[in-house]
Amino acid sequence: MLCDTAPLEQPKSAGSSVANMYAIVAESANQLSWQQVPDVAPTRGEVLIKVGAAGVNRADLLQAAGLYPPPPGASELLGMEVSGVIAAVGDDVGDWSAGQEVCALLAGGGYAEYVAVPAGQVLPIPDGVDVPDAAGLPEVACTVWSNLEMTAHLSEGQLLLMHGGASGIGSHAIQIARVLGARVAVTAGSKDKLDFCRELGAEITINYHDEDFVERVREATDGAGADVIFDIMGASYLDRNIDALANDGRLVIIGMQGGIKGELNIAKLLSKRAHVIGTTLRGRPTTGPSSKSDIVAEVTRSVWPMIADGRVRPIIGERLPIQEAAEAHRLLSSGQVTGKVVLTV
Amino acid sequence: MLCDTAPLEQPKSAGSSVANMYAIVAESANQLSWQQVPDVAPTRGEVLIKVGAAGVNRADLLQAAGLYPPPPGASELLGMEVSGVIAAVGDDVGDWSAGQEVCALLAGGGYAEYVAVPAGQVLPIPDGVDVPDAAGLPEVACTVWSNLEMTAHLSEGQLLLMHGGASGIGSHAIQIARVLGARVAVTAGSKDKLDFCRELGAEITINYHDEDFVERVREATDGAGADVIFDIMGASYLDRNIDALANDGRLVIIGMQGGIKGELNIAKLLSKRAHVIGTTLRGRPTTGPSSKSDIVAEVTRSVWPMIADGRVRPIIGERLPIQEAAEAHRLLSSGQVTGKVVLTV
Repeated sequence: MLCDTAPLEQPKSAGSSVANMYAIVAESANQLSWQQVPDVAPTRGEVLIKVGAAGVNRADLLQAAGLYPPPPGASELLGMEVSGVIAAVGDDVGDWSAGQEVCALLAGGGYAEYVAVPAGQVLPIPDGVDVPDAAGLPEVACTVWSNLEMTAHLSEGQLLLMHGGASGIGSHAIQIARVLGARVAVTAGSKDKLDFCRELGAEITINYHDEDFVERVREATDGAGADVIFDIMGASYLDRNIDALANDGRLVIIGMQGGIKGELNIAKLLSKRAHVIGTTLRGRPTTGPSSKSDIVAEVTRSVWPMIADGRVRPIIGERLPIQEAAEAHRLLSSGQVTGKVVLTV
Repeated sequence: MLCDTAPLEQPKSAGSSVANMYAIVAESANQLSWQQVPDVAPTRGEVLIKVGAAGVNRADLLQAAGLYPPPPGASELLGMEVSGVIAAVGDDVGDWSAGQEVCALLAGGGYAEYVAVPAGQVLPIPDGVDVPDAAGLPEVACTVWSNLEMTAHLSEGQLLLMHGGASGIGSHAIQIARVLGARVAVTAGSKDKLDFCRELGAEITINYHDEDFVERVREATDGAGADVIFDIMGASYLDRNIDALANDGRLVIIGMQGGIKGELNIAKLLSKRAHVIGTTLRGRPTTGPSSKSDIVAEVTRSVWPMIADGRVRPIIGERLPIQEAAEAHRLLSSGQVTGKVVLTV
């Protein structure tokens, strides 16, 4: 999406403002500078957004450290989600027009003044949410809904175990699970975070420093275990997660903060009829089955009304100017933030 | 289900024939003898079947070797499936009556003259199938349908990789997958077996002695991989199975002939959005969600018509008198048989 030529068509409302745009350029994990970069323009089926704010995700930290290259064809810039105003639309975009306030799920490119994104990845701003806060919604909403509902089919009366309950994804997942009628257990590393999770609706709060989550989940379920576990740790939690699963339980892994290769005990898997599922959002195709567009459409239809009527609220822990992206990364990495970090442009 | 008292109610048609019944008793893996055992009688909700034939399953070999104890409450006798005639019905059984020819899925007890089974695990004999052959159907039909259709959602145009394509389960799975409109790849250990799989509808036949199934599956799919893999090996195939999966692919493991503990590369899982699922049939509850009764009902509704109209046929490799159970076990264990082995009573 980075072009060094002029836009294919003149943006319909942004005029010359798309020229000579600024963006965060990552020289290394800690060296993030706001500097001029080549312009972007919407190609066929894309929308050009004048960025108001960008959400910060762990993927950005990994990418800045050189550990998570963008998928083929994606922008080289950081930034997996933004909110802002549509500056222009490319050919064959029927649903959106210049001037609309929107947010969007990106494969990259959000830490910038402008970003071009396939129209299917654009969402309206939910009613009652301001533009900067909306930048922190697309990733958590699409990640949580695609995994908990579309993949793991979490349903009424079931128990969700959410690791990292106070994170951006965790704090959103607790609320969604409650709206679905599920019970929620969470792990986190401090009393404050666990109290926060409890306010959001978590019933079983587990401090991973000094409690065994397998034991706590079994106690809370008469030995049955969790129907769904939403995990960001990967290898280090694999065996214990399966121990904590109920019969027919679904372990959904979306992160590998505890390593890549784990020992899988297949006998346990068989005896519980367990599912171990790994997913990412960024690597999904733009359209077609399991695509970002599918997920965005379902989120707009199912989750946005929950936000509009207040059953689910955006949890934004920090707002910083985008020039302070390095500090924002440090904050997210430190684990000190509850909820999302967003960068305002 | 083994009682040392007389039946609670006199069987309605079997008269005194349920007294002093004979069954196979396993002293060890190779010592299987036909001898008198305590009678069985149908309790509330059960049907008593006068066994005409019993199917032989790998679970019976494991149980005879002391490696696979029956689930709590199940008969101590071998035998996971039978066909025969209903000798009597217990209280609260509305769907079945004495004299009907049926087959049934069991938690054990089938290597005997009589077996009592929950009514929800009884199926009619499919049209056009004789009673002894029908003994080889409940396990394969319920295993294949519950995994390929109900769990992995194999669908039209997708590719199934079936390990052990010439086995009882394999030979049934190939046919079911073809009826569902899927393409089929199989592994097996000899040219004869692979030719047999091809006759049943397999398009890609892979000799595991000298071919790499990952490579063959990728070649056949322009690099995409298999949508569903149905595996009996477990640990030894785990990593290569994931390599052979397509994006959004489902690996369903039902056996551990290659070991229990395998290394799971979670990065591969995430990048493919892969599902690793373990299941057993024997450990499922009799009724309720994911139960044997649910599966039996779906198999009767969906699979039996495929058998009745000839699209799927029972593949019975050997029929032996039940007194030769030890020889039947040896045959199944040797891998020389194509399709199922059944024991006639």
